[in-house]
Amino acid sequence: MKLNIALLAGDGIGPEVINEAVKVSDAVAKKFGHEITWKPALTGAAAIDAVGEPYPDATHEVCKNADAVLFGAIGHPKYDNDPSAPVRPEQGLLKMRKALGLFANVRPTFTFPSLLDKSPLKRERIEGTDLVFLRELTGGIYFGEKGRKDNGDTAYDNCVYTRAEVQRLAKKGFELAMTRSKKLCCVDKANVLETSRLWRETVQAMEKDYPEVEVSYEFVDAVAMRLVQWPNSYDVLITENLFGDILTDEASVISGSMGLMPSASMGAEVSLFEPIHGSYPQATGLNIANPMATILSAAMMFENFGLMEEGKAMRDAVNKALEAGVVTEDLANGGKAYGTKEVGDWLAANV
Amino acid sequence: MKLNIALLAGDGIGPEVINEAVKVSDAVAKKFGHEITWKPALTGAAAIDAVGEPYPDATHEVCKNADAVLFGAIGHPKYDNDPSAPVRPEQGLLKMRKALGLFANVRPTFTFPSLLDKSPLKRERIEGTDLVFLRELTGGIYFGEKGRKDNGDTAYDNCVYTRAEVQRLAKKGFELAMTRSKKLCCVDKANVLETSRLWRETVQAMEKDYPEVEVSYEFVDAVAMRLVQWPNSYDVLITENLFGDILTDEASVISGSMGLMPSASMGAEVSLFEPIHGSYPQATGLNIANPMATILSAAMMFENFGLMEEGKAMRDAVNKALEAGVVTEDLANGGKAYGTKEVGDWLAANV
Ligand SMILES: CC(C)[C@H](C(=O)O)[C@@H](O)C(=O)O
Ligand SMILES: CC(C)[C@H](C(=O)O)[C@@H](O)C(=O)O
Repeated sequence: MKLNIALLAGDGIGPEVINEAVKVSDAVAKKFGHEITWKPALTGAAAIDAVGEPYPDATHEVCKNADAVLFGAIGHPKYDNDPSAPVRPEQGLLKMRKALGLFANVRPTFTFPSLLDKSPLKRERIEGTDLVFLRELTGGIYFGEKGRKDNGDTAYDNCVYTRAEVQRLAKKGFELAMTRSKKLCCVDKANVLETSRLWRETVQAMEKDYPEVEVSYEFVDAVAMRLVQWPNSYDVLITENLFGDILTDEASVISGSMGLMPSASMGAEVSLFEPIHGSYPQATGLNIANPMATILSAAMMFENFGLMEEGKAMRDAVNKALEAGVVTEDLANGGKAYGTKEVGDWLAANV
Repeated sequence: MKLNIALLAGDGIGPEVINEAVKVSDAVAKKFGHEITWKPALTGAAAIDAVGEPYPDATHEVCKNADAVLFGAIGHPKYDNDPSAPVRPEQGLLKMRKALGLFANVRPTFTFPSLLDKSPLKRERIEGTDLVFLRELTGGIYFGEKGRKDNGDTAYDNCVYTRAEVQRLAKKGFELAMTRSKKLCCVDKANVLETSRLWRETVQAMEKDYPEVEVSYEFVDAVAMRLVQWPNSYDVLITENLFGDILTDEASVISGSMGLMPSASMGAEVSLFEPIHGSYPQATGLNIANPMATILSAAMMFENFGLMEEGKAMRDAVNKALEAGVVTEDLANGGKAYGTKEVGDWLAANV
């Protein structure tokens, strides 16, 4: 296969972890006879510094014409304390999601046996956890009309969903559930919100098309609780944008493996793959960042092209590295810590 | 002191736990020379069954004219699977909050040393946790305009906040912080929402009036994570209605003492006190429900009248009961389980 991949390294440790993901992806491509052309493009604070905006048109062109996007991380401390600054890295993220139509954010949370003790939760609560959130990513209160009235003394944000938006996301959820344990949980606040009632009735109407899938409906506050109590009781969860923002982050810390969690944002034309961790500015340039989440995101990318063996080779290599203790300092537990590059080298040699 | 307390027992185990709270409150009142007149009124499914609506006008009259409201729990399984049913117990709750102006929901999360092992979190994560959420309760997306367009295919919910609403809640937050460790965390999503930017700028402008309080600003997704990782790093948190709904429930399970957590909803005229647990319909009438959360809610009620000794007497009695193993089956750990009434009797005898 010939693959054109847009490479958006972003800020902080982004470029370093992206480098290793490229290295390991190229090794896999070579082994399986594929050819990847990487197309670097600017995003985040790096793009603001260079051209004054976080998601420049030139970057959009590169992404639109690529077969997929591999993304590092964005965010810089100089933008942290002023959420109303006119230009911010996050705006680029939202603009990119909308412009590329990345409507389904796929966020798995799973455990690595060797990392269970890093979880804030007790072992028996977390063991066996393997869930996936599908978060709607281009609608809801993020993109509804917002503004001020009464000389700035009243603020509003409108949350809007259409039936078609819900169907599109829910379809992915049902399909994913069919490939897993056939359990789907629709997370909403249908006892209060009209948008949630639309979500619930739309999903209910789709149940007949997937008779094998067992669907449950839970309120977002109840899910926020059960995720901490019995995370391993969930399989596939679907939800709207803002609930997904909160719950996927909550879910990411329960496993103890947050630094390893990959994600995908699927669109109709192109999809994007990125680690869930941030740009970790303090670690920039120190060769200490853990590249594994980005490498596992690249594995998701291969799998999304139908290249399952390739994805598995990368996952297996990561598991082997964890067992062999070839890890960066965040996972070293007082033992030997390898550098970002050295972990990447080892994985490239072992895929 | 002469106190008139509206008594809204509600559904499920509500009446049973309320009975014990009355018993223990009367014992405290007797000891300290107060006189409580209890005014029972209907609410929840019980009120729907009796008069067709969950918060009848007659109940509102009782609450409005009381010095405080003591509330049990509402909710009945027959309403669980149809969030769009025309009349539901939750509607009564929202109507009551709005009609009584209960704008600040106070939700403490603390630990009992004897219950630490019940937490899903590891001991070192949870030890020493003692935080309080102030959740705005009468504004935001709960009460904004909501509806459908396009023949029902588009749904919307509007989230609105005014500066005055934020100030009112934040003032309580600053004041509470002054009585505790002087740390206040404002939880918002100011990188995306205009209402959150109003929250943040309003709180920032109030900082100068409370120079001793150290204020931090965190995004709701980050708080959802840190609550699981380091709950004991928080003290007072203030937030808007929907974020508060999700985060206070998340916080309630981390301590392992959820069945014991009280809450208060403060208004300008009257305030309401209730356990955070639900109506637990399966346990109705079995004399097994744990009344301690309701009793601790009554303690908050006394303290809110300035009766600190009285509140402390109730808290101390609960601690003594926990140490002596005078507990209901949820806390019995395979040991002897006492009935709801027996725990109430013991506490009434020991305040
Ligand atoms: C940075 C922010 C706008 C973004 C979001 O809220 O979607 C982030 O939290 C995420 O989840 O990707
Ligand atoms: C029942 C529901 C409407 C309510 C809310 O969302 O406020 C409940 O979850 C709560 O937190 O008291």
